[in-house]
Amino acid sequence: MYESPLFWPAHWQDKTLMVLDETLIPGQLRYIPVRRVQESVEIIRSMKTRAFGQFLVVLNTFVVEMYRIPAKTKVDLKTIQNVTQALNESRPTFPFSEVTAIILGVAQKASVSGTDVKTAVIKTVDGFLQGIRHRRLERVRQLAESIQEGDCILTHCNVSGELAMACSMAKEQGKNIRVFATETRPYLQGAKLTVWELHQAGISVTLIADNVVGSLMSEGMVNKVIIGSDRSAANGDIANKVGSYQIAVLAKEFGVPLIALTQPSHKVATGKDIPIEQRSPQEVLLYERRRLFPSGVDGYYPGFDVVPHEFIKKAIAIHAGI
Amino acid sequence: MYESPLFWPAHWQDKTLMVLDETLIPGQLRYIPVRRVQESVEIIRSMKTRAFGQFLVVLNTFVVEMYRIPAKTKVDLKTIQNVTQALNESRPTFPFSEVTAIILGVAQKASVSGTDVKTAVIKTVDGFLQGIRHRRLERVRQLAESIQEGDCILTHCNVSGELAMACSMAKEQGKNIRVFATETRPYLQGAKLTVWELHQAGISVTLIADNVVGSLMSEGMVNKVIIGSDRSAANGDIANKVGSYQIAVLAKEFGVPLIALTQPSHKVATGKDIPIEQRSPQEVLLYERRRLFPSGVDGYYPGFDVVPHEFIKKAIAIHAGI
Repeated sequence: MYESPLFWPAHWQDKTLMVLDETLIPGQLRYIPVRRVQESVEIIRSMKTRAFGQFLVVLNTFVVEMYRIPAKTKVDLKTIQNVTQALNESRPTFPFSEVTAIILGVAQKASVSGTDVKTAVIKTVDGFLQGIRHRRLERVRQLAESIQEGDCILTHCNVSGELAMACSMAKEQGKNIRVFATETRPYLQGAKLTVWELHQAGISVTLIADNVVGSLMSEGMVNKVIIGSDRSAANGDIANKVGSYQIAVLAKEFGVPLIALTQPSHKVATGKDIPIEQRSPQEVLLYERRRLFPSGVDGYYPGFDVVPHEFIKKAIAIHAGI
Repeated sequence: MYESPLFWPAHWQDKTLMVLDETLIPGQLRYIPVRRVQESVEIIRSMKTRAFGQFLVVLNTFVVEMYRIPAKTKVDLKTIQNVTQALNESRPTFPFSEVTAIILGVAQKASVSGTDVKTAVIKTVDGFLQGIRHRRLERVRQLAESIQEGDCILTHCNVSGELAMACSMAKEQGKNIRVFATETRPYLQGAKLTVWELHQAGISVTLIADNVVGSLMSEGMVNKVIIGSDRSAANGDIANKVGSYQIAVLAKEFGVPLIALTQPSHKVATGKDIPIEQRSPQEVLLYERRRLFPSGVDGYYPGFDVVPHEFIKKAIAIHAGI
């Protein structure tokens, strides 16, 4: 099975965290060295890393901080608290606090019991990530099972490598499939990431503009929608890249089942309780760094929207807990 | 009232037809000289002119041809037939034949009755266009009446000046309104044309990516959708820029009334009978003339989709006949 660089977009090089710059794909496969918390926050805010990459960065940032503290120096709990706070505030839609709280708890427990905080944090993050990797690979296998011979799949934005890998696995199982990927304006994650990784995986992929979904469905050209999710509510609603909701409404209208990859959480009751990040209007007003329109024109770009649970035919879940 | 250059995007300069190059807006307001049929076909195919501009070009192209024939030379009917055929074949979705047939008929009648074909054609086109201009201005007035105080209007693609002019009129009537315009990928007619002309008209306008429509409606941020149409079927279905259909489905889901500017026609029974032009995949694969993705990736770009009549709350119609 093909493993997409987007499946695990960060790794360690000695004691420097190397994070894949997803904004340069497919032109370049370049990793950004991260050596301090502010660098993590910066690459999260500027969306150089996104989706699963953000969680990898959030968790590994604690390790980055531990490596900054000289050997044999006792770690102050305040350090862990500062890291926690900086990461929690980086992007509002993401429940970073759900994982940072775990690390903070481990550090507090170690501190109280007199064991080494640094070792406890590094070990916890490592175990956490190994577990997540295992569960995500299992989810890829489940997703591949959900893909059937002859499927024409519509996807939106980018599912952090899992869709490409599931398609690759389905292909190895002898299934002929085809994927339609939306561009996903304004960042074009669909056009730049999804199309690229599916092509790398040897899957037949067709790019469409975001406004072609209705046309595609009314012509019966897709029989399945597969999307990821950035956050879940207790009732099963999910927040995902803006545009997911309208795709879900269209899928319902045309009887096309929607499969969502989810990370269940009970921290918020419903999708309405998920804060939606408002990105800068500049991000839609600028087009490949150039402004096309008169100044004085406004832009509106909510980063995400909420897909109510009744639109989700099947959720393939992984639990993020340790 | 502000008159948009897009409302009447062609004019005569001596005996040369000057056609607004809509692909250069808002950067430049440049007119392309058209002196022969093939130049008309070329600017229609390459979408340098579009929507109402195409009809202006189609009709005026007969006059262009008449001017090419030396004074006192008798016009061969074959010339008119050739022009008719070249124009009819230029873009499949448009019912150009509905207007070219009228001009051909006039020429045939003049030829049979022994009157001057050249004069008959020029006079017919002139009268036709004067009538259309009058009826379109009347439609702008009707549209302005449909706009109410406090309206937040969503529009898609570009309505050839009429929406900007109706908004300008509504504003003069003291109505405070706001417009959200979709980008309309891949040609960006919304971002380049609609945003520009609304801003010129002094209307508050906000640009959104095509995938933000569902989010906008679910937040109750728009209370009216206004779109144009490129073609109508006898049952009231319309073909318009791809993306219109999904906007209509969302509008229905959220109870937002959809107003369409239409040109009723009985040449085809339903929307299913309207041929949908498949544009080149390159137009979605290239992004501001640059290819972003690996070669081997396919693109799919139907130029239009069909909005079934049951999704249209109100049609403001003009009849194209003489």
